[in-house]
Amino acid sequence: MITTDILIIGAGPTGLFAVFEAGLLKMKCHLIDALPQPGGQLAELYPKKPIFDIPGYPEVLAGDLVTNLMNQIKQFQPGFTLGETAETIDKQEDGTFIVTTNKGTQHHAKAVAIAGGLGTFQPRKPIIPNIELFEEKGIEYFVKDPEQFRDKKIVIAGGGDSALDWSIFLSEVASSVTLVHRRNEFRGALDSVEKVQELKAKGKISLITPAEVVALKGDEHLQSVTIEKADETVSLDVDYFIPLFGLTPKLGPIANWGLEIEKNAIKVNNALDYQTNVEGIYAIGDVNIYPGKLKLILCGFHEATLMCQSVYNRINPGKRYVLKYTTVSGVDGFDGSRKEAEKAVVKSID
Amino acid sequence: MITTDILIIGAGPTGLFAVFEAGLLKMKCHLIDALPQPGGQLAELYPKKPIFDIPGYPEVLAGDLVTNLMNQIKQFQPGFTLGETAETIDKQEDGTFIVTTNKGTQHHAKAVAIAGGLGTFQPRKPIIPNIELFEEKGIEYFVKDPEQFRDKKIVIAGGGDSALDWSIFLSEVASSVTLVHRRNEFRGALDSVEKVQELKAKGKISLITPAEVVALKGDEHLQSVTIEKADETVSLDVDYFIPLFGLTPKLGPIANWGLEIEKNAIKVNNALDYQTNVEGIYAIGDVNIYPGKLKLILCGFHEATLMCQSVYNRINPGKRYVLKYTTVSGVDGFDGSRKEAEKAVVKSID
Repeated sequence: MITTDILIIGAGPTGLFAVFEAGLLKMKCHLIDALPQPGGQLAELYPKKPIFDIPGYPEVLAGDLVTNLMNQIKQFQPGFTLGETAETIDKQEDGTFIVTTNKGTQHHAKAVAIAGGLGTFQPRKPIIPNIELFEEKGIEYFVKDPEQFRDKKIVIAGGGDSALDWSIFLSEVASSVTLVHRRNEFRGALDSVEKVQELKAKGKISLITPAEVVALKGDEHLQSVTIEKADETVSLDVDYFIPLFGLTPKLGPIANWGLEIEKNAIKVNNALDYQTNVEGIYAIGDVNIYPGKLKLILCGFHEATLMCQSVYNRINPGKRYVLKYTTVSGVDGFDGSRKEAEKAVVKSID
Repeated sequence: MITTDILIIGAGPTGLFAVFEAGLLKMKCHLIDALPQPGGQLAELYPKKPIFDIPGYPEVLAGDLVTNLMNQIKQFQPGFTLGETAETIDKQEDGTFIVTTNKGTQHHAKAVAIAGGLGTFQPRKPIIPNIELFEEKGIEYFVKDPEQFRDKKIVIAGGGDSALDWSIFLSEVASSVTLVHRRNEFRGALDSVEKVQELKAKGKISLITPAEVVALKGDEHLQSVTIEKADETVSLDVDYFIPLFGLTPKLGPIANWGLEIEKNAIKVNNALDYQTNVEGIYAIGDVNIYPGKLKLILCGFHEATLMCQSVYNRINPGKRYVLKYTTVSGVDGFDGSRKEAEKAVVKSID
């Protein structure tokens, strides 16, 4: 059982920043995310795209913002349960919570903050008979660890940035990469399209277009895919098939936690602390809704901060917290690190 | 008469960022600040100190944050009335406002956002008879424009960073700089103390310690100051005397605008849009108060954003605003500039 002060569901920018504010108040955080890495949409969907409305950043690449947030919080040593989805929540008699993921990992926390963004990103699955049978037995909807594909024969399907970028990346890792797309045209960054063109010319990526994977074969594990082209059907021996057709956010199991839901988002008390109708469960960032709500990252930062203050008061009843400014008091990490402004010296001049 | 959509009182980080969010909604802003430059406390009190709790910045110097915010908003061409204090506000019959400063500058706006921080920074004045008589006639509490002191004889009083830093800076500009402090010890950045020591050794700064300026003389303009040391009293011919004894924030004239005040801050409706009890007047950032309020810059950013959305709805009744993400829609400046993410190409691979 993993134990922590605040269990944060969703490791996007709002969830990550909550770790920092909790840390200032000496509370530990652990994060659960369905994606294989922290950063939410920013890392998974548009890491190379600029964001213009983060205060103090005239322009920042989404991936860089995640890197900066990870650097900002590392001194508070957050824990991560990645690639798993929070499935059930059980409130204990003492007001604490046990949250269990789809893989059975249990987390015990004094408070829960749902920072689930637009929801859990579910892969759009191609309609192929029996595809579920081969999931995690040759079918992967995310590239969680590229090493999994070392010296393997892989087929990637899709026509967007993910399909292009992973084809490029895995062409150095896998023994063979075949990219299948139902059109001749790809939609992605110019760089990526040109790079795939170049790797194709060098024989490092095989391209089959316009075509679709229509059948899967194998015993225990996937062994071959059937690819339908305009005028022929071919069978290809493979170790892995990676369909990359985009992600759809779904509120998912959280929708069954007894929380008040409105427009696919969780209602919170924005007049105080972004707490839901269940005491001790908060919702921050894009996942919540209240009058005047704007789904902006900078709003999530504010909501995360007020949530931390409220949790502090909840788990330290009667203790008075005196707000300190980081410039004045510095930041003490849980790893023993200390950041502080250079102090003024008192010195006479002769 | 200066006209604008949103008149922002206070050009600290919250007020500056409001310009950006207003700009995204095609609204123009004008800012009034008592200080001679934008940035509020960050620029005036601790420009060289690091802040650790700006989301996405593991560490940023206060002065750099101001520079970044100024860069972020420049495309929206904000106007500034600097070195003046908003004194009176008159609500017009049509619901707009006229705000007049202590120097008589008039501003006409559709909405007013008070982003006054801890208040207007008032200089701590030394107790010297008739000091008010010479204000702006030889006495300056801020260095608004260093050129004012070119080839002049100046006396600076104080023992902190401001006194040290301006003595250093003006030693290159003025014909003579005398620094008077009532102790031998100075309190400031080590660099600054050492630099003053060095300039003193080179004869570029005269140091008189422990000593105090006790009298001022002149007809129309200041002509000499009387300095009392332990065992003697000297008179020094000067063009300017600059006492730098720190600043105290005062809510100031805003306190008389009929707004609900609590604990020296302005009560707002945090459940919706940070509006005060007077429709059309908002208060954002450290100057406001509501249940759970935290006086943090990142909270001001959020409050500024919701305020802008509310003003938009106020001055565009019935018009539906569809929120766009800057990554998706880009940012169109009032100066004709456009920032946008590189678009995906659609391209076939042969």
